[in-house]
Amino acid sequence: MTQKTASGSTRRSEGSRRAILEAALSLVGEVGYERLTIEGIAARAKVGKQTIYRWWPSKAAVLLDAFTAKADAGEFESSLPDTGDLAADLKRGLQATVDEFNDPHFQAPYRALAVAAASDAVAAEQFISRLLEPGNKVYVDRLRSAQEAGDIAAGADLRVAVDLLLGPFTHRWLMRTGELSYEFVDTLVHMVVNGLRHGA
Amino acid sequence: MTQKTASGSTRRSEGSRRAILEAALSLVGEVGYERLTIEGIAARAKVGKQTIYRWWPSKAAVLLDAFTAKADAGEFESSLPDTGDLAADLKRGLQATVDEFNDPHFQAPYRALAVAAASDAVAAEQFISRLLEPGNKVYVDRLRSAQEAGDIAAGADLRVAVDLLLGPFTHRWLMRTGELSYEFVDTLVHMVVNGLRHGA
Repeated sequence: MTQKTASGSTRRSEGSRRAILEAALSLVGEVGYERLTIEGIAARAKVGKQTIYRWWPSKAAVLLDAFTAKADAGEFESSLPDTGDLAADLKRGLQATVDEFNDPHFQAPYRALAVAAASDAVAAEQFISRLLEPGNKVYVDRLRSAQEAGDIAAGADLRVAVDLLLGPFTHRWLMRTGELSYEFVDTLVHMVVNGLRHGA
Repeated sequence: MTQKTASGSTRRSEGSRRAILEAALSLVGEVGYERLTIEGIAARAKVGKQTIYRWWPSKAAVLLDAFTAKADAGEFESSLPDTGDLAADLKRGLQATVDEFNDPHFQAPYRALAVAAASDAVAAEQFISRLLEPGNKVYVDRLRSAQEAGDIAAGADLRVAVDLLLGPFTHRWLMRTGELSYEFVDTLVHMVVNGLRHGA
């Protein structure tokens, strides 16, 4: 009996939690991070705002969980294809990210998280371990398989190689210094793969 | 007579302006951006805070002018050496930037400006045109001279090449995903120069 009540309550909690995360993501895409409020998220999710405050200390914390849930549900690129053509596989992964970063519903909340991480070292830890590192790992894995296949130099530092692929890309997006396009991806991947092929 | 008074006043204004910019930079290095206030800058510069508000709308605007003044005074790397050894010259430029980014007095206010630019497109325009673009140009110029000397591929897109050098570097610093060291610079420059040498 107690058991049954507990699991009913757990189910309701899980339903509220999911509704809150979805509300946060849809709302931030509409109003932007500055005008996003806990009250607004509560109204959209049809829960009391105390329910949100019980689980999260801030709107940034809600968004971080919302992104992590999407990532865990496999909605982001969680692996790269391995067709044997390293450049083609890297391009495919980065093209998917171009599409995400050009989508206001994705880029507004993700920018808010990145800005919070850039300004605050504590926020950065969570952002790095829950979002950046898993994203980097996908690329490290694909580069390692290319290294094992002899497609890139044996001694190449794969962590720096991933910085070389993702750093220019995210920096251009974050600082708005240039367009994120498939053409940019082509040029970037071409230069990086060339660099990795020739000498460690 | 009027002439004389005007230039005395201009001189005093210029003296106050310089004192305010220097006070802002020294103070932000001590207390951090969050706790930097116009009142604090005014006290350190020995001017009234109305003097600051007459010239600048915000502490971010003061800092941007302070950095621009330092850059104009040639305190940052304003050109790279051209010894004929491209990799060595690029390393020298990036090593100087490693030193700056590891100096709390430089990195705290610069981070504050970068965060403001990342979160706000209007702030970004000023940050890009007054600080990022002049910094990028130094590298574009050195790469162009290498291209003319035949050291790198004739068709290489030099803007993307600069993104490849500076993007991983600034992203690693901004997101605190890794150490900025001379060793990182060596690996980065090695990969990028390799990539530029082989094929456009």
